[in-house]
Amino acid sequence: MSIRIGILGYGNLGRGVECAIKQNPDMELAAVFTRRAPESVRIQTQGVPVCRIEDAVQMQDKIDVMILCGGSATDLPVQTPEFVQYFNVIDSFDTHAKIPEHFTAVDEAAKKSGKVGIISCGWDPGMFSLNRLYANAVLPQGKDYTFWGKGVSQGHSDAIRRIEGVADARQYTIPVDEALASVRAGENPELTTRQKHTRECFVVAQEGADKARIEEEIKTMPNYFDEYDTTVHFISEEEMKRDHSGIPHGGFVIRSGKTGWNEEFGNVIEYSLKLDSNPAFTSSILVAFARAAYRLAEEGQSGCRTVFDIAPAYLSAKSGEELRRTML
Amino acid sequence: MSIRIGILGYGNLGRGVECAIKQNPDMELAAVFTRRAPESVRIQTQGVPVCRIEDAVQMQDKIDVMILCGGSATDLPVQTPEFVQYFNVIDSFDTHAKIPEHFTAVDEAAKKSGKVGIISCGWDPGMFSLNRLYANAVLPQGKDYTFWGKGVSQGHSDAIRRIEGVADARQYTIPVDEALASVRAGENPELTTRQKHTRECFVVAQEGADKARIEEEIKTMPNYFDEYDTTVHFISEEEMKRDHSGIPHGGFVIRSGKTGWNEEFGNVIEYSLKLDSNPAFTSSILVAFARAAYRLAEEGQSGCRTVFDIAPAYLSAKSGEELRRTML
Repeated sequence: MSIRIGILGYGNLGRGVECAIKQNPDMELAAVFTRRAPESVRIQTQGVPVCRIEDAVQMQDKIDVMILCGGSATDLPVQTPEFVQYFNVIDSFDTHAKIPEHFTAVDEAAKKSGKVGIISCGWDPGMFSLNRLYANAVLPQGKDYTFWGKGVSQGHSDAIRRIEGVADARQYTIPVDEALASVRAGENPELTTRQKHTRECFVVAQEGADKARIEEEIKTMPNYFDEYDTTVHFISEEEMKRDHSGIPHGGFVIRSGKTGWNEEFGNVIEYSLKLDSNPAFTSSILVAFARAAYRLAEEGQSGCRTVFDIAPAYLSAKSGEELRRTML
Repeated sequence: MSIRIGILGYGNLGRGVECAIKQNPDMELAAVFTRRAPESVRIQTQGVPVCRIEDAVQMQDKIDVMILCGGSATDLPVQTPEFVQYFNVIDSFDTHAKIPEHFTAVDEAAKKSGKVGIISCGWDPGMFSLNRLYANAVLPQGKDYTFWGKGVSQGHSDAIRRIEGVADARQYTIPVDEALASVRAGENPELTTRQKHTRECFVVAQEGADKARIEEEIKTMPNYFDEYDTTVHFISEEEMKRDHSGIPHGGFVIRSGKTGWNEEFGNVIEYSLKLDSNPAFTSSILVAFARAAYRLAEEGQSGCRTVFDIAPAYLSAKSGEELRRTML
């Protein structure tokens, strides 16, 4: 029997989950839930209903795991604790500073309902976090580095779009090669914000807009750009569509640490991602952890979990025996 | 209270475990067990007894986890099932093809004794396996690549030393840059053995030995070298000591896979290690998994486990709350 998945929220992430389910033969899409008028939403999977979010609760017996595809700012802090009352749920909550309180809220609700809620299952938090944990456990004496990019930062792109005279914008976060090289060489550098990443912006200006002022406003924007070396390129709407319609991303998690009686041996552990589509990859992670949620629930477990709490074998469709034979 | 660790076998790996314990304040070395005459073995930790292997069984109440530091060829297939009758144990059994039978033997003995045995906790099998599993779970459509090196292969070095006229030898396995670059670019190449790795040999010849014959014998040695591009350098004993006394190693696990409704998005997940000392790093992994074994046993679990079966949080000395706050 397949694991029946519900998708709650049908944006980039929800569409990605739909694609990822198609790649996993032990899973099937049971329904998509949307805030919009269901009849206005076209999905790709044949014969699967699109429903109103309000109707989800009545479909508890049709869904094994609900994947929550809303945003971390306002959707998930409300939705995850709410829907774990009725479903096993997964989210990709990514506001690092608020994870502890999100965990507590989901854990309380999940323990009451007897369901499983797995939070923060993306790549950062998520796969990057796993790599930080494993590397720290194995190399207790060392230093951690995380670099993001090259990739599109949605938040920074939005910030540029709010500037007067800007019609459209896309911002790429780019790791600084020299910094990466120094970390990889085991030099354990102390790096400032500016030394780790640069920011490259592609901007479509409105007709007659003052480009010099726009560039200045971008480069001096507090928090977003003022601590970085930023370059700004003005391009046409056509160029934006042609060259910048994707949502690529990626990054690096590196731990450089010492072993040996006198810490005489250097070691560098590096994990990296290079993704053509950030939301499609995040969705694939959500689906793998949905399998884990299903299995934990089948075992009678309940409460909130993170990627740290889940044995890797739970993510795979293969049996323990097959995993040992083929992947160990 | 500290986790009390026993080391069984005091070679490179056992010495590495001793060093790793020193880096983990929640652990202490309880005793070292050796096949040699205990009075002939000097260890680095003050005040810790060196005992005969035969005396281990009498020290069950002094040791929480026994780390088995023998070899995979003849020691561990016997020792792990034997000692899990008396102790929670960990090993780094690395004969991939024989893992299923080793698992079965350890599992049976561990279930009878009520102890936990974790097998194959090195970097391959071990950390590399974990990365294969995670990457496969997240990207079901894709292709796996493992490259080893640059690093010293003990088995290949030994094979050269058995050639007539060879006084000493060191063999480095080196990944081919072009192959790595193609895999990283998402080109999903089909690679032959020769295309993936080259082998570089440093040989000290005995006085008067026929170097041309030695070189020929190395390059044509079946299984070890005949399928590879091999270079042979003859060096002096002094050069061997000066330049090749370390045991560095490392490697790369890469999965290149597709996401999207029509698999239109490429993704590359890469994990790599660069290690000054192969045994010291393997030892550090063993010690982290010893912590997990202790905790599983405290929970009343028993049986054989691999890295796939253990939630990452069990490896860390930090609490779940601290991990979520600092690493997620």
